[in-house]
Amino acid sequence: MDDPKKQNWEIETPNNITIKGIIGLLMGNTECNDDRKVISLGIGDPTAYSCFHTAAVAQEAVMESLLSAKFNGYSPTAGLPQARKAIADYLSSELPYKLSWEDVYLTAGCTQAIEITESILAGPGANILLPRPGYPIYGLCAAFRHLEIRYFDLVPEKGWEVDLKAVEALVDHNTVAMVIINPGNPCGNVYKYQHLKKIAETAKRLGVVVIADEVYGHLAFGDSSFVPMGVFGSIAPVITLGSLSKRWLVPGWRLGWLVMNDPNGSLKSPKFIERLNKYCDICGGPATFIQAAVPTIIEQTHDVFFRKTINMLKQTSDICFEKIKEIHCISCPYKPEGSMAVMVKLNLSLLKDISDDIDFCFKMAKEESVIILPGLCCWPKKLAPNHFRC
Amino acid sequence: MDDPKKQNWEIETPNNITIKGIIGLLMGNTECNDDRKVISLGIGDPTAYSCFHTAAVAQEAVMESLLSAKFNGYSPTAGLPQARKAIADYLSSELPYKLSWEDVYLTAGCTQAIEITESILAGPGANILLPRPGYPIYGLCAAFRHLEIRYFDLVPEKGWEVDLKAVEALVDHNTVAMVIINPGNPCGNVYKYQHLKKIAETAKRLGVVVIADEVYGHLAFGDSSFVPMGVFGSIAPVITLGSLSKRWLVPGWRLGWLVMNDPNGSLKSPKFIERLNKYCDICGGPATFIQAAVPTIIEQTHDVFFRKTINMLKQTSDICFEKIKEIHCISCPYKPEGSMAVMVKLNLSLLKDISDDIDFCFKMAKEESVIILPGLCCWPKKLAPNHFRC
Repeated sequence: MDDPKKQNWEIETPNNITIKGIIGLLMGNTECNDDRKVISLGIGDPTAYSCFHTAAVAQEAVMESLLSAKFNGYSPTAGLPQARKAIADYLSSELPYKLSWEDVYLTAGCTQAIEITESILAGPGANILLPRPGYPIYGLCAAFRHLEIRYFDLVPEKGWEVDLKAVEALVDHNTVAMVIINPGNPCGNVYKYQHLKKIAETAKRLGVVVIADEVYGHLAFGDSSFVPMGVFGSIAPVITLGSLSKRWLVPGWRLGWLVMNDPNGSLKSPKFIERLNKYCDICGGPATFIQAAVPTIIEQTHDVFFRKTINMLKQTSDICFEKIKEIHCISCPYKPEGSMAVMVKLNLSLLKDISDDIDFCFKMAKEESVIILPGLCCWPKKLAPNHFRC
Repeated sequence: MDDPKKQNWEIETPNNITIKGIIGLLMGNTECNDDRKVISLGIGDPTAYSCFHTAAVAQEAVMESLLSAKFNGYSPTAGLPQARKAIADYLSSELPYKLSWEDVYLTAGCTQAIEITESILAGPGANILLPRPGYPIYGLCAAFRHLEIRYFDLVPEKGWEVDLKAVEALVDHNTVAMVIINPGNPCGNVYKYQHLKKIAETAKRLGVVVIADEVYGHLAFGDSSFVPMGVFGSIAPVITLGSLSKRWLVPGWRLGWLVMNDPNGSLKSPKFIERLNKYCDICGGPATFIQAAVPTIIEQTHDVFFRKTINMLKQTSDICFEKIKEIHCISCPYKPEGSMAVMVKLNLSLLKDISDDIDFCFKMAKEESVIILPGLCCWPKKLAPNHFRC
């Protein structure tokens, strides 16, 4: 086509590094064959390992819902009311107040919950505070929405706690929200009650919303137990993001949620709710028959299933931590207590011919067929973090 | 929360009327009880009627995929390659060239395909041409992406063909695309080969992409058979949007697609593809196990299933058209030949105490418990269209 306007279609692609992008490059760098299989530690997908199966009751609930043929039609775009209510009750059991079904919006996985949250908060000149290290989809999504990104650091020596002084220094009158990922991805940390309370108090003082990414919610296996950020929703408004993906070991079911933990109604004005509802209309959410299975999945999954997962994560994380100690050129600044990831530090002075974390990860892929994620993906705009996530 | 910044969260909600929004209001206006059920003709969801069941093979394929427990993990964000290939082959059978699996992107229903397409084409100052009457999600989505909307009219007397002179008059150097919905929603029209070719030639001359919404693809039951716009992809680049929703009668499965019909590669430059792939990373797509069932669904659904649907649509549409003729105050400017909708015109001079289409639809809901969609939803910025969709 003779087209002087071609540049119209070649605009503004954010230049963020994505996990999927770099994993693809690393996979292309492996030399595997029948004797040598790729060991993939790059993506937080428990289903890649045969020991992680979802609960039988969850699979049966989806099957029954499908076979009933009652849920082949559209759901309301915010989700089926019975599924929204089941999630509201599930989360309310750990809160000092009760969520309504209308506080819950169903999404195509936690990824879509992130996208919706950032999009409805974005506006001319707005900025958002993201943790570093963190989960790169937040940055990519903010870039697509022209939401300016400001990074605050997590402090490895303090269990990857938020540097709250840095947060205060970054905020201005255009800051709309700060993101907290707990249990932590990529660091495997679990925040204590007091630290979360301080985050809420800081957010209140600064007038920002807390976006609490709890996709790894309840997956805590160390000394600190998991405390939902929504507990502090009466201090500052909290938008909690979660999903069935990790706790039920089914990331491919694409059933996530966005929840308004805002008992004082500071955030959920009629205008805000109208915007959120209209935004859901353009999204395309999770399959209706999977939504319809949510009440059964949540109410009938036994505790023994969850305990089995936690025990397995604890065992494997302990082995990983001990083995890392035996390797001199790498170290782990913090023993993981939750999620499915850990940040490992490289000591470049002990490594021959390795220039940085990217170089290390590409050589690991090529020479050992082991895929690990370069720290740079989670640690943007910081020179030589020289960590990796596995 | 004492918050001087509250207005940050109350920004720019598009004031578009949505189908779901107005249907909700109409439903709230009904007075139904045990003796009187609501008759809902407002939303294009075939599963609302007991005569429309999906194919047994489709349901079984999804069930097997779920039970295999092999597809509980993440898929690539553009979709499983085997599902992309199955859709590429399915669509290629009616094209003069062959699509590659990489031309196909899987989406959470056609709604998400619309959202992705408009978002990746949006840029500073860009505008898009939308048909009027049309499907309101295009306008809502464009408004969220700050894509200026310019409407071109469809001509009822010419089978709702595109007024191509109007299109030429609307285009400027910031126009990125024009949208064609075929078979038509809300008008039930089916475009002939020659008209589609003229659209492609106009798009080529004007240097715009054609977005071809074929969510009702193959659902043609009149004199004109369905011709995919992709047939003309070598004249102008076409982005085809579709889904399993209507032809397989499963809108709740949320399995749609976005397809680059661009055999000359005018559109799919490396930069454009990078942008599209990165955008898919932030979206959250369809459930992996539903994706995995797509090859079986497409390859093994018998023609007899499709014929049954077509026959039923033809019968019901004929009854509808004949009955409309018997009612003096309404008329149908065009006998529907496809999709699941028809536009009906009100003759206000024969109706007592009815001020416009909105008034008519609200009174129909209240007095008769029948839900039909006011034409205004599909016919924005036009005074008194005085039609309704059913």
